[in-house]
Amino acid sequence: MFKIILNNIFDTAIIGSGPAGFSAVLNLYARKKKIILFGNFKFSAIYKAKKIKNYLGEKEISGLELLDKFYNHINSVNIDHISKNVSQIFYNNEIFSINCDNNIYFSKTIILATGVSRQKNIKNEEKFLGRGVSYCATCDGIFFRNKTICIISYDKSQEHEIIFLSKLAKKIYLFFDYKKININTNKDNVIILQDTVKEIIGENNLVGVSFYDRNKILECDGVFIFKKSISPKELLSGIKINKDKSIKINKNCETNLSGVYACGDCAGGIYQLNKAIGEAQIAAQNAAKFLDKNF
Amino acid sequence: MFKIILNNIFDTAIIGSGPAGFSAVLNLYARKKKIILFGNFKFSAIYKAKKIKNYLGEKEISGLELLDKFYNHINSVNIDHISKNVSQIFYNNEIFSINCDNNIYFSKTIILATGVSRQKNIKNEEKFLGRGVSYCATCDGIFFRNKTICIISYDKSQEHEIIFLSKLAKKIYLFFDYKKININTNKDNVIILQDTVKEIIGENNLVGVSFYDRNKILECDGVFIFKKSISPKELLSGIKINKDKSIKINKNCETNLSGVYACGDCAGGIYQLNKAIGEAQIAAQNAAKFLDKNF
Repeated sequence: MFKIILNNIFDTAIIGSGPAGFSAVLNLYARKKKIILFGNFKFSAIYKAKKIKNYLGEKEISGLELLDKFYNHINSVNIDHISKNVSQIFYNNEIFSINCDNNIYFSKTIILATGVSRQKNIKNEEKFLGRGVSYCATCDGIFFRNKTICIISYDKSQEHEIIFLSKLAKKIYLFFDYKKININTNKDNVIILQDTVKEIIGENNLVGVSFYDRNKILECDGVFIFKKSISPKELLSGIKINKDKSIKINKNCETNLSGVYACGDCAGGIYQLNKAIGEAQIAAQNAAKFLDKNF
Repeated sequence: MFKIILNNIFDTAIIGSGPAGFSAVLNLYARKKKIILFGNFKFSAIYKAKKIKNYLGEKEISGLELLDKFYNHINSVNIDHISKNVSQIFYNNEIFSINCDNNIYFSKTIILATGVSRQKNIKNEEKFLGRGVSYCATCDGIFFRNKTICIISYDKSQEHEIIFLSKLAKKIYLFFDYKKININTNKDNVIILQDTVKEIIGENNLVGVSFYDRNKILECDGVFIFKKSISPKELLSGIKINKDKSIKINKNCETNLSGVYACGDCAGGIYQLNKAIGEAQIAAQNAAKFLDKNF
């Protein structure tokens, strides 16, 4: 089930397929680095922008048209692109392991260009993260074999994870935050609830969730949350963040973790296209320097 | 002779017509600021670049084509553009005075996007700056009435300054650093020398210049140097610079002088297109904030 992609160790894994991620690709490609890019540009903040007037050379263009143009540019260079979200990154033995959609990829450096999540955490989500709350069915599903779990899905593209969990868990309470759920499970252990989770309940241990319409607690052993993007702290343990939850970087776009760079909206500052693209160029150049020095 | 443009006080004067200057224009225009842009894009570092492959959306484009595209974009917004070089900026009474080609313009804030000069200073040029060496005929010509001066011209577009000085000075030794000098003076006090100045000579006071082919000193009272770009310190007195002669900025692109911002190559770091454009966006946003708060 877990597929480990060991035949390839990448020089740099770029997490995020918005303008910052794309700019990092071009600038590392120019330095002949072996690159893997993760993410889907449809999640980029500018995807829905109707009119962009400050991208030099384009008098007026929609976010979609511009991303499409960028994407065509990226496609003209030879890199690996996985258009799915990364759920977690680990560091071990001078190499980063990247967990994306049931596969593990390896890379010597990381550039975080994840944008910012416009989505608020559920109450106590952070408190119980790793102690009952998980973002990764592949990583943690096994701990909930024959148990009762609650799934909160914000991301239609991760619905296959629900199927996977339905084969392990005894009972699933399923909440979703989009128009129509589309899972095809012949298991009758999945109970779909048209409601919104309010709080994850528990003193020291997670005991259940409460939701809006009914004022009672739904007991469960664990909570899986599938989001379009997860916070940097949850993505890469130990990374230093600012008070506004952006990733702390210096002027070289270096984070506190050696070999890890951040750029664009996720690194704070103004949420603007050109700033993101420019910062990605700095991150890419410094990642290239790091690679040349250390590998 | 000095024309003071007082009917217009601009919100922001952007010094430099490369990608950084252009990006600053768009981002301040979007905030409805009254902008004046100085400089000629032909002096931009990328003007001669044959192939640019890392401007997102353009798989391969020449520097000239890209600048042309940028310039068309800038021309579609309604701003003032003076395609000549600024020789000096002064601060007085909460307003900056900008000296450009014998005219004085006024602005509430300044964005420096001057790029870097690839031209080395002549020996002792900095030592005698303001004490015999000048970059500005209009500002300092008057001090050399009936005296002997040396002119070193690196910039054909400033040749009219030579005419102006020939009417004031007793004698002019003229050196130039391009193919053909094209001045039309009926004065016989201009002696054109096909040579290169090596050093400005003097212990405490400037006494003359020495040049390569002949090993003697040419005595004079002052030296005028006409360059395509001048260093930030010479442009705006009191501005703090780094050891590498770039302008010292913080992460908001603020310099040590209130209301003065810098971005792109002149602000140090990597000399790259996207970094310059992105930094200009940060400078523009912070200049706009400053204007909203203080004026």
